[in-house]
Order: sequence, then C-alpha cells, then structure tokens
Amino acid sequence: MTIEETLKLLRDNDNFNIVTHVRPDGDTIGSASALCYALRKIGKTAYLYNNPQFADSYLWIAAPYIAPGSFEPGFTVCVDMADEGLFPEGFTGSADLCVDHHPSNSFFAKDTLLWANKASCGEVVMELVKELCGLDPEVSDLLYIAVSTDTGCFVYGNTTGETLRSASELCFAGARNAYLNKILFRTSSKARLKLESLIFASFRYFHEGKTVISVITKEMLDKAGAKEIDCQDIAALPGRVEGAFTSVTIKEIDENSSKVSLRTNGVVDANEVCARFGGGGHKMAAGCTMCNGCSQAAEILADIIGGEYK
Amino acid sequence: MTIEETLKLLRDNDNFNIVTHVRPDGDTIGSASALCYALRKIGKTAYLYNNPQFADSYLWIAAPYIAPGSFEPGFTVCVDMADEGLFPEGFTGSADLCVDHHPSNSFFAKDTLLWANKASCGEVVMELVKELCGLDPEVSDLLYIAVSTDTGCFVYGNTTGETLRSASELCFAGARNAYLNKILFRTSSKARLKLESLIFASFRYFHEGKTVISVITKEMLDKAGAKEIDCQDIAALPGRVEGAFTSVTIKEIDENSSKVSLRTNGVVDANEVCARFGGGGHKMAAGCTMCNGCSQAAEILADIIGGEYK
Repeated sequence: MTIEETLKLLRDNDNFNIVTHVRPDGDTIGSASALCYALRKIGKTAYLYNNPQFADSYLWIAAPYIAPGSFEPGFTVCVDMADEGLFPEGFTGSADLCVDHHPSNSFFAKDTLLWANKASCGEVVMELVKELCGLDPEVSDLLYIAVSTDTGCFVYGNTTGETLRSASELCFAGARNAYLNKILFRTSSKARLKLESLIFASFRYFHEGKTVISVITKEMLDKAGAKEIDCQDIAALPGRVEGAFTSVTIKEIDENSSKVSLRTNGVVDANEVCARFGGGGHKMAAGCTMCNGCSQAAEILADIIGGEYK
Repeated sequence: MTIEETLKLLRDNDNFNIVTHVRPDGDTIGSASALCYALRKIGKTAYLYNNPQFADSYLWIAAPYIAPGSFEPGFTVCVDMADEGLFPEGFTGSADLCVDHHPSNSFFAKDTLLWANKASCGEVVMELVKELCGLDPEVSDLLYIAVSTDTGCFVYGNTTGETLRSASELCFAGARNAYLNKILFRTSSKARLKLESLIFASFRYFHEGKTVISVITKEMLDKAGAKEIDCQDIAALPGRVEGAFTSVTIKEIDENSSKVSLRTNGVVDANEVCARFGGGGHKMAAGCTMCNGCSQAAEILADIIGGEYK
C-alpha cells in the first residue's frame, strides 16, 4: 500500500484497536502510542490493545492510550509486527492493517504499509502522523522513543542518514531527546549492572582473542537478582571486546541444555555454525539450543569456530 | 568573527599549522583533520601539529595529516580549544585563529570563530569545509568522528536537533557511520571491560539508593591492567544506576589523597559540595581533590550529601 491509501483507510474508519507485538519494545510502543494520539487528534476513537507485557517494559509511555475492557474495536492496526506469530498474549482477532519496517513481513494483515529500508517502524508512523495532524511536542516525544530504540540511540549498524534526519526533525518539533535518552539508554537497574559485572568477569578468550565466549549461568542471574528485563541485549556484550571477530553468549537452561547466541564480523558464518545444532539466523548473527551444559557447549563451540578461521 | 571573514582568512593565507588540544579527543582530531583535508583540497599546504598524545588516542585518524619535523608553519589554527592552557605538550607558538564551540572560550587567539551553541567543534568546521571544498566521503568520515564524539554518539544531554541534522547530512555525503560507531563507541579494550566489571562490583549505595559511590583503587587499576586511555569517562558509570540522584567517583591517588568527581541531577549542588574541599565546577558536575584515603573520603562525602537531601 502507498501512504496515501493508508491515510484514506485511517480517515475512513473508526474505533481503532492498535496492537503492539509480543515482548513490546520502544519502537512498537512508541509507534502505537503516536498513531493513537494522531487518530484521536483528528476526532477518532482509538486505543492500544492492552498487551499484558506492557508492565514489564515501558508502561509509562503506553498508559494514557490503553483500551478499557469495555472498548469494542472497529478496525485493528498492528505496528512493528512482521508476522501473526508475534501477536501479544491473549489477542484473538485479525489485522485490518499492518504498518511495519521488517523486510521479513509476511503480509498477514488485510492491508500492509511496509517500508523495509527504514531502521524503525517509528519512521513510517512519523510520516502518517505528519499527514494526519502534524508534529507537536507530545507526539514528537512518542515518535522519538520509537525512532531511537531500534538503533540503540543511533549507534547500531542499521542507523542511516534518514534515521538521523527523522530524529533531528522530531527534536526541532519539541521532542525532549536529552530527557528521554537518560531514561531509555543511560539508566540501568542495580541488577543489570551487577549482572554486567559478572558477565564481563566471565569472558573466556580463544584463538588469540578473535573469539570471546560469555557463559551466563542461573547462579549468576540469581546472584545479580536479574529478571528477564535486566537481560535485554546481553548477547551484545562480548562483541564489545577489541579484536573480537566472533562473540558467543551461552545461557544455561539446565544441566543438559543451553541457549546460544552467536555474533560475528562475517569471517565465521554464524548461520552455518548454528545450523549444525538445528538453529539458524543470518551470516553475522544466529542462535541455537544445544543439548549440553554451558561449559561443555563453550568447548564444543570454541573448537568449531577455531576450525572456521583456517 | 563571521564565517565569511574566517573563510577569507583561510583563503588568503598558507602553510597552515593546525593545533589540537592536550589529551586530544575525537572532536579536536576529527575537526583538525577535516580542516587540513579541505585546505589541501583548495591547494594549500596544511599539516597537523604533531601532538605527542596522538599515540594514546586515535592516531589512525590524524596520521595522514601530521607535520614532518621540517615543516615551517605560516599560519596557526587551533580547533576545539577554549584556552591557551590547553595547548598540547611542547607547543610554543601563538594562535592566529581559533575555531571553537566552548562558551568558556577566552579569546586567546588573534581571531576567533566561536559558535557556542553547537554541541561539537565538528559542526563549526563542517560549515567551513562545505564552503571550501564541499563534502565528499573522506572528509565526511572525519567530520562524523568530530560531530559524534562530544555527544557520545547522540545520547548525551548536549545533543540537539542541529547535531542530528549535521550527522544526517554527513551520512548522506558518504560518512561510514556504522563502521565508525563500531570502532569509536562499541569497542572496548579487555582492560576497560575488566575495570568496568570491578567498578560495577564496587558500587556502594546510600540514602535509599539516591547516592551511589564508586571507589577506584590503584589495586583495581592494576588488576584490570588499565592504562589512562582505559579510564576515559569512568566518572559517568555510577550515574547509570536507576534512581540515583547523586553519583560520586573517588579515585585513589595515594594513602592520603583522592580525586573526586561528583555528578548530580541538580537536587544536590555539586559545585557547592566540591568547593568545601577547594574544588569546583558546575551545579550538576564538579570535582575536587581530598586529603583523605578513598574509603574515608567516601564516608565524608556520603555524610555531606545526605545532609543536602534534607
């Protein structure tokens, strides 16, 4: 669909039910809240589907928009959702429209506005909001949250000139970027910092430092008092080591099974290594589950990865 | 000076000696290298003063521009330098021109181009480069390094819509932001990560978590194998803790003296606390040296800060 067709669909319908994905992040919550704000601004009734996992992430963003139990949806819009497998817990309806940026979008909705070259869904929703009601400081805050999240505040490899241009435009329109960055990117729970401390201390180096393996045991999680939310993006930590070509994060499931995340600079094919254990992904990032305790998994993977450098 | 006057000065002179500040960072090195590149592009002879501290930071950026011993300077330009006290080691000349963004600039140079509302000196130099020779991918890389450094890759409170717009323009002109971000912001030495691990483990909490104190002993630095460059910006680490109003970093000098860095959200006046020990700074960030061992310094500061909340 084009943006004009999408705008017509939004203007012609009412009683919007806006749905965020399972394990909601800043992009899906910020995008959904901004769209909800804009639809209300042009006189529509609009709510966010009450994703039961809001409470684990950024409830303060979504709170003003969450649907009461009595709300009867008329038109359902999914945001930042690549597949119907990502519907939030408890959701049973179907999607009239999906607004997304994932190249892997399965076109599960009746209609789809997909801009697959965008770093965030927020950048797509931003263009809709500009046409619907324009940018004011309140909606710019919501869109800034969406646009900044998927790029880790403009530092990840997916950040483009367009992402930075959108963020700039939002700041000029009144987004409080300094305030939001402090909350979203510069604050960690005590448990998270304690966990990072234990993870950094756990790093094992192989192949003259080209391979870094991080092993995260249940004991470490307990010791840090870490919950699921404190573990976001921990697979990125060993990749921070200078000189690392390949970084591996092995999380203990139990004595005989481990969850593996593999990230590489492309010299080792992460997808190929993980495929040997029934997993997969991309060349530079893949995952698998191994039927080994985490120490043994580390040794097996170090052997395989070492072979790949030759 | 206006930008037009500055451009005339650059076009009318030759044999440029471009000077970076003591303990050079990405802003001064990127700005100086970009200006050097642009002056060469319009046919001038231009070099960077061989700052002896290049080797400790980003030598790979400055390397192609460093002056040979035989170079006879004709016109000296300082970049990102607020005061002559910041001349690099060994520099004995005087400044014909200073290009800067610090509100505290002391106008020590014969002429000064000062844009005090910019987050980086890179943004000022970028406007000069655009007029001198335009943006190509090579100079855009250098300017991107300058523009991104002082904002910690657009996450710090000094980031503005203008900073993001400049960065966006540089990406469109060919700056390899993903590649540079990986090197500048997403890679740490083993020693740095080991040190962070020890620092996170050292945090002491006071006043229901409103105060976080980090004590860094010489033993910790030894254990991590950390050098000066591994300690950059460590005073920012305790401020990452959720709920912290005031964060203190105490670095051991010897048994009876400690170097203190204090950062606050404004509830406690950092400048006032540090002034009691002969130090100073701003309301939200200040420093001092205390004639106490670091454990004792921590107790004294915790007491004083606790009194400030009442």
